[in-house]
Amino acid sequence: MVELRGDERIDYLLADHKRRIIQSESVFAFSIDAVLLAHFTYLPITKGKIIDLCSGNGVIPLFLSKKSKVPMTGIEIQERLYDMAVRNVKLNDLEDQINMMNENLIGLAKKIGYHRYDLVTCNPPYFKTEDLDKRNDNEHLAIARHEIYCTLDDVLKSCSELVKSGGKVSIVHRPKRLTELIEFGRKYKLEPKRIQFVHPKSHKESNIILIEYIRDGKPDLKVLPPIYIHDEDGHYTEKVAKILYGEEGSRVHGSDSKEL
Amino acid sequence: MVELRGDERIDYLLADHKRRIIQSESVFAFSIDAVLLAHFTYLPITKGKIIDLCSGNGVIPLFLSKKSKVPMTGIEIQERLYDMAVRNVKLNDLEDQINMMNENLIGLAKKIGYHRYDLVTCNPPYFKTEDLDKRNDNEHLAIARHEIYCTLDDVLKSCSELVKSGGKVSIVHRPKRLTELIEFGRKYKLEPKRIQFVHPKSHKESNIILIEYIRDGKPDLKVLPPIYIHDEDGHYTEKVAKILYGEEGSRVHGSDSKEL
Repeated sequence: MVELRGDERIDYLLADHKRRIIQSESVFAFSIDAVLLAHFTYLPITKGKIIDLCSGNGVIPLFLSKKSKVPMTGIEIQERLYDMAVRNVKLNDLEDQINMMNENLIGLAKKIGYHRYDLVTCNPPYFKTEDLDKRNDNEHLAIARHEIYCTLDDVLKSCSELVKSGGKVSIVHRPKRLTELIEFGRKYKLEPKRIQFVHPKSHKESNIILIEYIRDGKPDLKVLPPIYIHDEDGHYTEKVAKILYGEEGSRVHGSDSKEL
Repeated sequence: MVELRGDERIDYLLADHKRRIIQSESVFAFSIDAVLLAHFTYLPITKGKIIDLCSGNGVIPLFLSKKSKVPMTGIEIQERLYDMAVRNVKLNDLEDQINMMNENLIGLAKKIGYHRYDLVTCNPPYFKTEDLDKRNDNEHLAIARHEIYCTLDDVLKSCSELVKSGGKVSIVHRPKRLTELIEFGRKYKLEPKRIQFVHPKSHKESNIILIEYIRDGKPDLKVLPPIYIHDEDGHYTEKVAKILYGEEGSRVHGSDSKEL
């Protein structure tokens, strides 16, 4: 059995009653953004290697390991979150597949090798540091949400250095940052190939963007049909319920999980 | 009465039975893209000046003159289309408001003045010239559809030179070109502020992008709720019927207009 620290709790990984995840409101709890990224991304299934940056409590590798057998590495700069991720890997008996590292993504390729990965995933901090004083996050949440240790430019540079030529990079971010996602991407030879916008409801502006790049890819961008999180009654749409609770998913399966 | 040339015909401007438009299948007929751009764009109503580039038969100024009283200039490089636009202005007694010019948009600001316009609209050629040989367009259609006389870079440079600081530029294009729309925009100090994606149906990839820039604007992009053209039965969605046929719009009003 793994130990719990502070206000940590163990949740099921959504409707998956085989996988569980240690979370904490004061340190790190995964959001629907991570679920959407894990669903959106291209995924090598049997061959290749995956690396997840800004991995937090390891939620993305935990999700991806449901569908892929390839080795995965998770990178997390905060020791407290890294420690949570290590216990999550152990809790789910995934030590043979998932390797967590307590590292800075800046300069990472120099340490672990350039262009070794078929897929890089990342759910980076969304907010610039100038927005920091408006919020009341503690240190852990502030680092996960704000560009304190890495900017979007740093993230895309590191993704570009880690991914193979022809390999994919999948990122979830805010649509407000679309211009930078495109500019910094191309600066580092990451060509945007698929974008999907997520809207809270069908008549609301988008608040989440999913973007997939190919390293050294040719320009040929597709904008996928959008995703709406809630219907007009405030329930998850059918599409999102399916993403959250699986093919057999229905809202009944959601009874174990609180609203993300 | 105005003269018609070749296979030209006179259509109503959608449900507007006051405005009519000369069109021709072999030279220029407006598409739903122009209607969507006219609906999407910010519009000065009583003060300011508008310029429309790649104006074709003048369809965008004709649409905008329904809602705005400000002076409008339309720029068209093809003499044959310019001539059609001039007759359209006359046909609708709009000579006092709309001035057509048979000019090249490249270098235009040098001739007519830099940074004089509050709004620049443009429905430019969508396709690169390397795609040209795959198509069977005649010269007029080829020039309107392919980047023969101007590239997207040229278009955004000219927009930037014509619009006032703080003024707006509205463009309709293909989502495939999103990366260039953003890169060339920022190259010429046009900051993307509003984007709306249009999809043929709710489960299809986007095939039209509407984008609005502000000259010298601060980065703050919004991605609006998407537009679907047709519902699953192949009818115009309620939103699009409203755009095409007005607030009082219903499909009944569409009986005069062929499907765009």
